[in-house]
Amino acid sequence: MPESVIRIGIITVSDRASRGEYQDLGGPAIHAWLTQALSIPWQALTRVIADEQAVIESTLRDLSDKERCCLIVTTGGTGPARRDVTPEATEAVCDKILDGFGEQMRAVSLNYVPTAILSRQIAGIRGQSLIVNLPGKPSAIADCLNAVFPAVPYCIDLLEGPYLQTHEQVIKVFRPAHAKKPG
Amino acid sequence: MPESVIRIGIITVSDRASRGEYQDLGGPAIHAWLTQALSIPWQALTRVIADEQAVIESTLRDLSDKERCCLIVTTGGTGPARRDVTPEATEAVCDKILDGFGEQMRAVSLNYVPTAILSRQIAGIRGQSLIVNLPGKPSAIADCLNAVFPAVPYCIDLLEGPYLQTHEQVIKVFRPAHAKKPG
Amino acid sequence: MPESVIRIGIITVSDRASRGEYQDLGGPAIHAWLTQALSIPWQALTRVIADEQAVIESTLRDLSDKERCCLIVTTGGTGPARRDVTPEATEAVCDKILDGFGEQMRAVSLNYVPTAILSRQIAGIRGQSLIVNLPGKPSAIADCLNAVFPAVPYCIDLLEGPYLQTHEQVIKVFRPAHAKKPG
Repeated sequence: MPESVIRIGIITVSDRASRGEYQDLGGPAIHAWLTQALSIPWQALTRVIADEQAVIESTLRDLSDKERCCLIVTTGGTGPARRDVTPEATEAVCDKILDGFGEQMRAVSLNYVPTAILSRQIAGIRGQSLIVNLPGKPSAIADCLNAVFPAVPYCIDLLEGPYLQTHEQVIKVFRPAHAKKPG
Repeated sequence: MPESVIRIGIITVSDRASRGEYQDLGGPAIHAWLTQALSIPWQALTRVIADEQAVIESTLRDLSDKERCCLIVTTGGTGPARRDVTPEATEAVCDKILDGFGEQMRAVSLNYVPTAILSRQIAGIRGQSLIVNLPGKPSAIADCLNAVFPAVPYCIDLLEGPYLQTHEQVIKVFRPAHAKKPG
Repeated sequence: MPESVIRIGIITVSDRASRGEYQDLGGPAIHAWLTQALSIPWQALTRVIADEQAVIESTLRDLSDKERCCLIVTTGGTGPARRDVTPEATEAVCDKILDGFGEQMRAVSLNYVPTAILSRQIAGIRGQSLIVNLPGKPSAIADCLNAVFPAVPYCIDLLEGPYLQTHEQVIKVFRPAHAKKPG
């Protein structure tokens, strides 16, 4: 386990936000959620980029391979429109796809809106990084993080990454009994 | 938005129905459901074809690219048997797959039969057309349309297609607050 | 339909079990579940192999093509870790993937642990064999088999395989009304 500080990538994928025509709300919503949830020191690496598959891919590769983020979260670009290509970029850079994340985020979002089935958000593994697509809408971001984050720290353990811990009263993480905290 | 009438493709995929050995029940069931649900003028383009992947693909391409259907619904050919190839054909012609449709149709069908998990039905986007696979069984068709149709009009909005409207007492569609009816 | 005895493959995928460093618990748990559930004579073909994609693929091919197993069940290797490659091997050898199995097994496992979303277990068809990935943990094996097995016999019917029957008080299988027992 690295001694260095835990690094988490936050990528806003939005043509308008990347051109400054629109205030990025998704990235700050993710940052605020993580700040409230995590009880360990961590550092955010934030990016605001256009809905271009090649740009999303290179940003994901950079944050994973070079910046060594154990977790990379994206917001935006997961719908059915022509410019929505975040899942395509995520799938292209990942070694493994974890279908359960998308399934559960859609199932939870269906409690709020029937259009949740239009979301193509996925999650996957690249090297030692877990990449999770979140929706663009800030309120839906918290719903999705509340739904999947309990499984995130143990997933990062299995990738031999840093040991994430949270404030239990904010979000309870789950690790199987045999998964002990390292020395 | 085109001024012309809204066109919806209905494809029955069945070896026996295409040879006339069997009355097509799936196509008429879809037609009846849409007639009852839609409150706007629309035109059905119906096809009855064999379980041949190349034929299904060319029919989907024709109804999407040439006939400009905003929605194409298939019935049949989604099971695990050797001749069931509708999802393969759908995936081959689509630019994007919307996993949420299949997940929700199976989840709803599981309330009726445990064999719902054998259905491989998917949905996806080709150009400006939303393509949705439905099961072959007429009673299951209505269950699936009731489950996913609330999200269909907004999906077609996002593809810059025509503005679909329904009789609210039959089926309520959902559009986010920011999605307004065009002029 | 073959007159010969029904054959079911049980594959334990585990580096440590295959080297004898660890007692295989998953394979015997599957065997015990099937013994209790099935009311017809059947024969188990068991294998314990390493987490090597090529080895898993060749074992699946052998049990399907040569040994003519109508059902092949695996345990282990479905997580997000680097050595977990059972779903990759399964997908590589299958003609069709049945997404409903993975969805339902994860949905059921989510009732027990939020880390169920980390499981990548899938099911698919190779020739006349249904292949189902189960988790490595013995207690989760029964939960998953209880969830999906009601659909397994009818799936094997659709593949023109043998007619599986169970003790109804242990597990109830479902076949549509038109699916009759062959002569």
